[in-house]
Amino acid sequence: MSQPRTEPQAPGPEALTPAAARAQFRAGLRRPTSGFSAGYAQANLLALPRELAFDMLLFAQRNPKSCPVLGVFEPGQHDDAGSASPLLADGDVRTDIPAYRFYREGALVAEPDDATQHWREDLVAFLIGCSFTFEAPLLDAGIPIAHLEQGVNVPMYKTAIRCAPAGRLSGPLVVSMRPMPAHRIADAVRITSRYPGVHGAPVHIGSPAELGIRDLAAPDFGDPVEVPAGWTPVFWACGVTPQAAVMESKPELAISHAPGHMLITDLPNTALQVP
Amino acid sequence: MSQPRTEPQAPGPEALTPAAARAQFRAGLRRPTSGFSAGYAQANLLALPRELAFDMLLFAQRNPKSCPVLGVFEPGQHDDAGSASPLLADGDVRTDIPAYRFYREGALVAEPDDATQHWREDLVAFLIGCSFTFEAPLLDAGIPIAHLEQGVNVPMYKTAIRCAPAGRLSGPLVVSMRPMPAHRIADAVRITSRYPGVHGAPVHIGSPAELGIRDLAAPDFGDPVEVPAGWTPVFWACGVTPQAAVMESKPELAISHAPGHMLITDLPNTALQVP
Repeated sequence: MSQPRTEPQAPGPEALTPAAARAQFRAGLRRPTSGFSAGYAQANLLALPRELAFDMLLFAQRNPKSCPVLGVFEPGQHDDAGSASPLLADGDVRTDIPAYRFYREGALVAEPDDATQHWREDLVAFLIGCSFTFEAPLLDAGIPIAHLEQGVNVPMYKTAIRCAPAGRLSGPLVVSMRPMPAHRIADAVRITSRYPGVHGAPVHIGSPAELGIRDLAAPDFGDPVEVPAGWTPVFWACGVTPQAAVMESKPELAISHAPGHMLITDLPNTALQVP
Repeated sequence: MSQPRTEPQAPGPEALTPAAARAQFRAGLRRPTSGFSAGYAQANLLALPRELAFDMLLFAQRNPKSCPVLGVFEPGQHDDAGSASPLLADGDVRTDIPAYRFYREGALVAEPDDATQHWREDLVAFLIGCSFTFEAPLLDAGIPIAHLEQGVNVPMYKTAIRCAPAGRLSGPLVVSMRPMPAHRIADAVRITSRYPGVHGAPVHIGSPAELGIRDLAAPDFGDPVEVPAGWTPVFWACGVTPQAAVMESKPELAISHAPGHMLITDLPNTALQVP
């Protein structure tokens, strides 16, 4: 972020360091992470059995807008404290996310706060960039984020657009939606384009029907947001896309974050900027 | 490219369509592809047995500057005519590259013009972006390309920088070098930064010794170029890096392009631009 947004009394969640935010979630805080730790990348989690790891990595390579990979852990690995550039120093992907989803054969079976008991030595954890990351530079530019102003989770939708399949994985593109004032959309495109590692530029602006979205007020994940008069819905590819592929492709087990409840990493936004 | 560089009599290789260039190489033309088919992406090839495909894709994910993946074929697949966005319509990775390298247990054993006889059903072909791609926008900006002016292959060097390993694959970063006039280096950074899919911004400017390069006149791959007085060597990550990993990691079989002898794809440069 270009400037710290300090406040006189109580520092908000945007001022928390990634480590401090993770500690709160590890201790049980359960809420969406939009607005937390401004200036640091947030990540989606998808952990799959090793036998599906190549399919998942190939799915990500073929669908880079929805699945920009920030990191891949070794089978069974749940932290990266020893790595040269740790994404979560002193953190643990099994505990540091506010809420998890367990899928068995594609069905959501639980939404616990902790994944430790269900972790397996053959699980490969993929960390995929989240668009919450570029909300700080949008705010810095004075662009409003409706779901933050309304105090809700970002709305996310399954679309009628199919991802490129890879091996046993296939599914629809999932998008997040932020309504934008007409005169700021070009700026939002320009700014988010600089962050391809967290979904980059919007995939669609206006016309939800063309994405197969019938009712903006009924998102498939997250919460609805009110679209102010004269504003236009702007859609970004979303890291929940791999979860939609899990729901359709039905692997034996998958562990993910709950949509909107992200892993806050130590990776500074500046490391993701292009050019 | 912003403008076609037409010439009165004989159109140069830069004016060839990708399909026409591939046809010449398929017919036996053997030469570096720098300067061919301006405006279209060029690609490195690495084909490995399926059992190493995940390690290779993970190696690419962990070393995105040297291994930006443009495409991954299914095991045994050698063309993508049927795909939604073919990289080489009517082309074939076994025949359309000017020269190939065969590695057995990490040792270079042959450099044929055609890989058809040695292709196997379990080979997974990775197409990795090549920095020849952004030479057209550099030339459009009036930035000289020394190896083109001197009529030689680009010089490439193994460095002392280690890539992040992945599974059974490890090796050094390989870089290509283009000397640049001091007053154009910033422009070269700005322009190439827009093309992360073909290595993007330089990894190093000046000081070859810090990369472990002792003698610029003795590249590990390609040809030496004369560095004009007052010019500075500028180094970009190079798609020969996976070949260096093959040489070190010694898989049973690998098939690659010969350095500088690339696959010319149908992917327009504009599709790779950010933002």
